[in-house]
Amino acid sequence: MAQQNIFDNEMFFDGYRKLRDKEVNANNLFEIPAFLSLLPDLTGKEILDLGCGFGEHCVAFVEKGAAKVVGVDISEKMLEIAAKENSNPAITYINMPMEKIDEIDGTFDLVVSSLAFHYVEDFDGLVKSVYNKMKPGGLFVFSQESPLTTAYGNCDFPRWTWDENGRKLYANIADYGVEGERESEWFVKGVKTYHRMFSTVVNSLADAGFTIEKMTEPLPDDALLEKYPEYYDLFHKPDFLLVRAAKK
Amino acid sequence: MAQQNIFDNEMFFDGYRKLRDKEVNANNLFEIPAFLSLLPDLTGKEILDLGCGFGEHCVAFVEKGAAKVVGVDISEKMLEIAAKENSNPAITYINMPMEKIDEIDGTFDLVVSSLAFHYVEDFDGLVKSVYNKMKPGGLFVFSQESPLTTAYGNCDFPRWTWDENGRKLYANIADYGVEGERESEWFVKGVKTYHRMFSTVVNSLADAGFTIEKMTEPLPDDALLEKYPEYYDLFHKPDFLLVRAAKK
Repeated sequence: MAQQNIFDNEMFFDGYRKLRDKEVNANNLFEIPAFLSLLPDLTGKEILDLGCGFGEHCVAFVEKGAAKVVGVDISEKMLEIAAKENSNPAITYINMPMEKIDEIDGTFDLVVSSLAFHYVEDFDGLVKSVYNKMKPGGLFVFSQESPLTTAYGNCDFPRWTWDENGRKLYANIADYGVEGERESEWFVKGVKTYHRMFSTVVNSLADAGFTIEKMTEPLPDDALLEKYPEYYDLFHKPDFLLVRAAKK
Repeated sequence: MAQQNIFDNEMFFDGYRKLRDKEVNANNLFEIPAFLSLLPDLTGKEILDLGCGFGEHCVAFVEKGAAKVVGVDISEKMLEIAAKENSNPAITYINMPMEKIDEIDGTFDLVVSSLAFHYVEDFDGLVKSVYNKMKPGGLFVFSQESPLTTAYGNCDFPRWTWDENGRKLYANIADYGVEGERESEWFVKGVKTYHRMFSTVVNSLADAGFTIEKMTEPLPDDALLEKYPEYYDLFHKPDFLLVRAAKK
């Protein structure tokens, strides 16, 4: 099973970096706050970050008291930036596909991953590896694109239907029950993501031995909607799914 | 909080009975097999069935070895049929809203419910009551309409978009993130259902103390699709969500 390394494609990388540099985007407004709200107290914790990218989370974890952070990413380019901008004696960056974390020494109190799992084909296998790398009592916190978002792909109709005023009226959802690869264009052609139903995400976690503690589909509140009314579309189709699961 | 008793409305009841009497419907093809596949060995078990309706499941449980079955339903009319057609010394039918199961004596090895919870406003409270009525080691197995189905309501557009050949192209999903009451027409006007996101279903179970073991969104297999190609639409939008959760 080949691991996709789209982040080392230069056009993709440049487009992605510009997007992440924008202050107002769905990640900053919804995914990051929801992700942080699911984390436990990090004091003294040993943490593994899967798909750590530029290492922003890794360095934030150290600032919040983490004893040790291992950041794993398949992209050499992203880890070069991480090493330049977010290095710290308590952080080790490892350039490898997250499917190979069995090779990392030790076990962790907390395994996290932010918006990387929808690039992973074998989620079931990955979740089992994560479970094995965790200490008893440990937590697993991750975000991914919502199954309502990953369902779309290879379609000859748009994601949305708009009303006569140009507002999104509803999301066009097809093939939600057809799991597997989706090819789409995001900065470059041929970006591959993998769609899984809500039930499949839950079952992979349950089968590995995890107890699901919390699931979040972030939505805007009134104050945010007043400032950015365009995000009402998240009520029709949330962008993100976040989970906290425990190894009891 | 008022409990809805739409099943004692005569027009609704007649329409519903005719639908359930049809051999080929989505309940028989998808919901019932998925529901049965989630059940444990029933030998000697004490079972509580919430929204038991005509009691078909209750009598089947006894035939499979259950020691005692309590069937609860808000509809007197349905329980009259249950008493006539599906009575058994091991079964007790109780006419009450399932929100009041705290009043029932004893605890159970298994609590089940088939396609009734989308009529319940306070799911969170109900799940806590179910947990309290269960023995340690007990299981909770239920089905409900899929959140992708309950999301629809009070909309001025149809549930589906069809292609030029009259095939369903995609489901029109709006207000998935807006939880709560939906009013729709199903045999009669004003049938109320309650929409909850996948994450809310999961969180109510987790907060009550349940460990989620399995979640199912039933889909047709190839053999079934060959016979009933119209059920391909379940790949776009599953009708049902089923869950098995354990009180550890």
